[in-house]
Amino acid sequence: MTTIGFGIVGLGRIGWLHAEHIAGAVPGARLVAAAVDEAQRRELEASGRAPCPLVADVADLVARPDVEAVIVASPSSLHHDHIIEVARAGKPVFAEKPIADSVEAARAVVAAVERSGVPFQIGFQRRYDPGYVRARELIAAGAIGEVEMFRGITCDRIPPVDFLRTSGGLFWDLAIHDFDATRFLTGDEIEAVHATGAIKVEPRLAEFDDIDHGIVTLRFQSGALGVVQACWRAPAGYDIRAEVHGSRGKVVAEVDEKFPARLYDERGLVAARHDQFTERFREAYRDELQGFVAALRRGSAPTPNLTDALRAVEIADAATRSRRQGGWVTVGQ
Amino acid sequence: MTTIGFGIVGLGRIGWLHAEHIAGAVPGARLVAAAVDEAQRRELEASGRAPCPLVADVADLVARPDVEAVIVASPSSLHHDHIIEVARAGKPVFAEKPIADSVEAARAVVAAVERSGVPFQIGFQRRYDPGYVRARELIAAGAIGEVEMFRGITCDRIPPVDFLRTSGGLFWDLAIHDFDATRFLTGDEIEAVHATGAIKVEPRLAEFDDIDHGIVTLRFQSGALGVVQACWRAPAGYDIRAEVHGSRGKVVAEVDEKFPARLYDERGLVAARHDQFTERFREAYRDELQGFVAALRRGSAPTPNLTDALRAVEIADAATRSRRQGGWVTVGQ
Amino acid sequence: MTTIGFGIVGLGRIGWLHAEHIAGAVPGARLVAAAVDEAQRRELEASGRAPCPLVADVADLVARPDVEAVIVASPSSLHHDHIIEVARAGKPVFAEKPIADSVEAARAVVAAVERSGVPFQIGFQRRYDPGYVRARELIAAGAIGEVEMFRGITCDRIPPVDFLRTSGGLFWDLAIHDFDATRFLTGDEIEAVHATGAIKVEPRLAEFDDIDHGIVTLRFQSGALGVVQACWRAPAGYDIRAEVHGSRGKVVAEVDEKFPARLYDERGLVAARHDQFTERFREAYRDELQGFVAALRRGSAPTPNLTDALRAVEIADAATRSRRQGGWVTVGQ
Amino acid sequence: MTTIGFGIVGLGRIGWLHAEHIAGAVPGARLVAAAVDEAQRRELEASGRAPCPLVADVADLVARPDVEAVIVASPSSLHHDHIIEVARAGKPVFAEKPIADSVEAARAVVAAVERSGVPFQIGFQRRYDPGYVRARELIAAGAIGEVEMFRGITCDRIPPVDFLRTSGGLFWDLAIHDFDATRFLTGDEIEAVHATGAIKVEPRLAEFDDIDHGIVTLRFQSGALGVVQACWRAPAGYDIRAEVHGSRGKVVAEVDEKFPARLYDERGLVAARHDQFTERFREAYRDELQGFVAALRRGSAPTPNLTDALRAVEIADAATRSRRQGGWVTVGQ
Repeated sequence: MTTIGFGIVGLGRIGWLHAEHIAGAVPGARLVAAAVDEAQRRELEASGRAPCPLVADVADLVARPDVEAVIVASPSSLHHDHIIEVARAGKPVFAEKPIADSVEAARAVVAAVERSGVPFQIGFQRRYDPGYVRARELIAAGAIGEVEMFRGITCDRIPPVDFLRTSGGLFWDLAIHDFDATRFLTGDEIEAVHATGAIKVEPRLAEFDDIDHGIVTLRFQSGALGVVQACWRAPAGYDIRAEVHGSRGKVVAEVDEKFPARLYDERGLVAARHDQFTERFREAYRDELQGFVAALRRGSAPTPNLTDALRAVEIADAATRSRRQGGWVTVGQ
Repeated sequence: MTTIGFGIVGLGRIGWLHAEHIAGAVPGARLVAAAVDEAQRRELEASGRAPCPLVADVADLVARPDVEAVIVASPSSLHHDHIIEVARAGKPVFAEKPIADSVEAARAVVAAVERSGVPFQIGFQRRYDPGYVRARELIAAGAIGEVEMFRGITCDRIPPVDFLRTSGGLFWDLAIHDFDATRFLTGDEIEAVHATGAIKVEPRLAEFDDIDHGIVTLRFQSGALGVVQACWRAPAGYDIRAEVHGSRGKVVAEVDEKFPARLYDERGLVAARHDQFTERFREAYRDELQGFVAALRRGSAPTPNLTDALRAVEIADAATRSRRQGGWVTVGQ
Repeated sequence: MTTIGFGIVGLGRIGWLHAEHIAGAVPGARLVAAAVDEAQRRELEASGRAPCPLVADVADLVARPDVEAVIVASPSSLHHDHIIEVARAGKPVFAEKPIADSVEAARAVVAAVERSGVPFQIGFQRRYDPGYVRARELIAAGAIGEVEMFRGITCDRIPPVDFLRTSGGLFWDLAIHDFDATRFLTGDEIEAVHATGAIKVEPRLAEFDDIDHGIVTLRFQSGALGVVQACWRAPAGYDIRAEVHGSRGKVVAEVDEKFPARLYDERGLVAARHDQFTERFREAYRDELQGFVAALRRGSAPTPNLTDALRAVEIADAATRSRRQGGWVTVGQ
Repeated sequence: MTTIGFGIVGLGRIGWLHAEHIAGAVPGARLVAAAVDEAQRRELEASGRAPCPLVADVADLVARPDVEAVIVASPSSLHHDHIIEVARAGKPVFAEKPIADSVEAARAVVAAVERSGVPFQIGFQRRYDPGYVRARELIAAGAIGEVEMFRGITCDRIPPVDFLRTSGGLFWDLAIHDFDATRFLTGDEIEAVHATGAIKVEPRLAEFDDIDHGIVTLRFQSGALGVVQACWRAPAGYDIRAEVHGSRGKVVAEVDEKFPARLYDERGLVAARHDQFTERFREAYRDELQGFVAALRRGSAPTPNLTDALRAVEIADAATRSRRQGGWVTVGQ
């Protein structure tokens, strides 16, 4: 069986990680080309660090016959255009979240991809993390009874303000992972949200009405409640936790410690923690690509899918509107 | 130095625990009398289990010259009357929370106790728990920088619905501990709250517009955010956690495990957990009385005090109104 | 019911702790007198810190009619004489370990106490620690099946070398707690030991053929194996652990963390640990006295008893001989 | 750059795992042939599950020009012959432990491999586990000061007695991983050992003078002490722990929990644990092959090396002799 040739759009932090995984850790796949901008191409060529042939844009990428599937890891504001361009070329798409920077644009992406009929997977890597997978299995198996309350929290170090300016905001860029995890873990849908926020880290966020601390209360279709906390502040390292309370028990997914080894010294117990999400989820990032390749080879539908991609954006949008205008906002309206 | 004679009003679960502590674990104090109702008096006298002489009511209790201080552990709906009656008799009061069943009544209690000039302590026992004390010390010492986000959760097994009928509701009876812990840990005041709730455990709560799951979002005067989750559901035992995130770190207070010993068997690691809050906080309940007695003997002001008692009630009230009417409610208005 | 009047011999670190507990935390007991040496008496009287009337020696102590029971907390080398003197006076004895500084002397203590018929308890406080108690309960209930392997470790900071000079050595002074815990947890007897040791901390230990690191392999009567590690080195705080492996599971007793609260900062997770054994076992020290007092009042036999006191010394002695002469040594011969 | 063609000798549990890793998880390597016995070949061919072309023996394997390196994963008793045969053919060897079933034979392997000049790596996979690697880094960086005491424990479920009959015994087959880890973590050499053992699980071990529980006391060249416990009993899953105590702190490597997710239910906290060592060390098994391939491609010396392979066998041999004959045995004599 031959391997699937992958093209990638964008070689930023996540794009580079995907490229490394395709090149060396995803059996059945090979990296054949990357579309990067002029500046990065010159730099990579000068340094000899290009991981594969470089092309100028998505058109050039999908034109190559050896590109049989494409990873879209460009800046968030370009996802809409790039996903649609790849889908129209009839090639399977693995896209980083969010799929677009508005709900309307996201629906256009969904429509275009569905029309094209190409396989599609969205990069919610937590769905491939052993902790989240285990939690879902336990919940699905009835280990905690009926789900009654959810809590998710994600804290990360704040990116440069210019990145944030086009990111869609805290709920679109960061909390979106919790919104998806909520659906993944509970199998339930979020009906309405109520959000609030604060600026404690970066005053310039006010320029574009964004926040660095946010709390979103959730109401599920089942009547269960939930809350998501997100913040651009992580002095002790990348920090996440998911708790699902049920009528018979609760499940907690959390990885506090970076190493399976602990130091005890005059400070007491000192356990290093994950610093970057790329480090915390390194294997989940690999495994989601393995999942995508396996689905392509089997001809089955990749997961998480278009609906998952759209729902997360709808929730992020509702949370953003709730925070700005006050009051509860129904998701998807 | 002679010991202080204590009277106690009420010998329910908490009252009995206080009586045991005064009788055997609080140096400087002795138990001299308890006011219980007719039925309980007959039962205790018949069984020979009365821990001290029994009297019929608060009037008889405070009339005894050997009663030099009084613990009010009667049903919540009677706290207002009992505290005021003891204070008017000029005797120091240690009162279980809440001090009254409305904010207006709570303010009347505050006024009456202040007028009487007697020492007063409210039974927020978490302030005497080593985990909460340590967390506060770390925060006060600047270990986490400026406080930016708080999260508290308390889950307990649901009491009989008839108890809940007069308890004031989930926020008055259970979440009140988190509201107080929030103030204790952060040293900040809650400015406004937004609350929601659901009934997942006990349908009859709808009869008196109560809930068994609640989420309260908090805005602090400093601009920090917070969230309190509370539920009458604890299948794995009494379950609490407090997290305070700051600009330089976070502090987490949690006690997951009942014993400092762990069993590993074919199920994996199995760690028993605390079942009752009286068990989880057994020593905090003792230590708060030791703190009260020590303050009385030193002539210093007991803590937590009247203001702490009132603020917690104001927050619980605001949360309840927010849940019922929707929208943010400013605390204390 | 009146309280039992306690006298105490010695007000060193442990003696002082016992005195505090008797004075304020052991219902049914009161502190009536302490025997201390001339120097300490002058210092306590000058500072006004004497916790009770002071007498010159054990004879004066036991002569007081209000001294109804005695705690022997004098230097180890005097335990033999003091226990016998109290027993001969017909008063119940609570003695710190070891009961003597040779097996022969320990047997004389046992004989004298038995002849006197007074109640006796030895200060192996781990038997009153909730972790050890829980472990024993689980094992006794069959939770791990048949016991097959044991491991105990105790690491503490090194005391002054002049204290160690008369302490009997690492196995008599420190590992003795593990030897007793082994018997307590397994309900089995140690048949033979093999020991080795090293000096890594304090070269002057060589002057009196002692060590600061020791490893003792154990053979139980049941055929189970075990190992005890002990060291006078605890850079991260007082450090103990007990593991019992069985045919169906294992139990681990360990308390790593000092507070039920954790700090996360730029170092990662930082958890303070217990520094002193008096702090780690503070409540066990209180509870063993409560146990002693309860036994006296009920007229039942206190525990751990004379046999426990003697067996631990026999094991420490066998371990010391094995280390010095090489080879396995049968315990009690 | 082309990939390195691997042959493998033996497709038992470990051989199969290596084959999977070479085939799909080790960039720069490809699986080209496997030598299996007649019975397994027929079975694999019948089921269509052969992962690569199958050959009859090592001679056929090394005769293939596309076999550029060989993994020796045959039964332990054949390691000596197979390693030497591959080395004589001039092809790099990755060998499972132990390299031979006697010290004399192991020295012959070392001599033959050295004569051949081929790169060699021994399969002590713990050296590639993040916990052990982190522990070594901390120790090497001086985080715990001078090493003073070591403790390692490994408990696994007992293999079939017929496997054990030719395995070399508990110390050769299981504790050998701890012996190597000791050297890896401390950077020190074991000078002498004292061992004891017991049969608690499988009476038939007595037929060939083996044990299922063993304790080995270690003396290091530096004067440090250590102890290794090993047992064929793991009711709660595969169970290992390494502790290194130093003059300024200690490091503990342990992974208790199988998933980064925890279930809390009416039993309390229940955390599943690793069942098989192939599961606990799955990634270490992959990473050691990645390390081997990387070394081959760079032309650097693979690690752990021949000396590591030999020293571990010498320690296992000394421990076995000590257990059988009693007394301390000097390693390497």
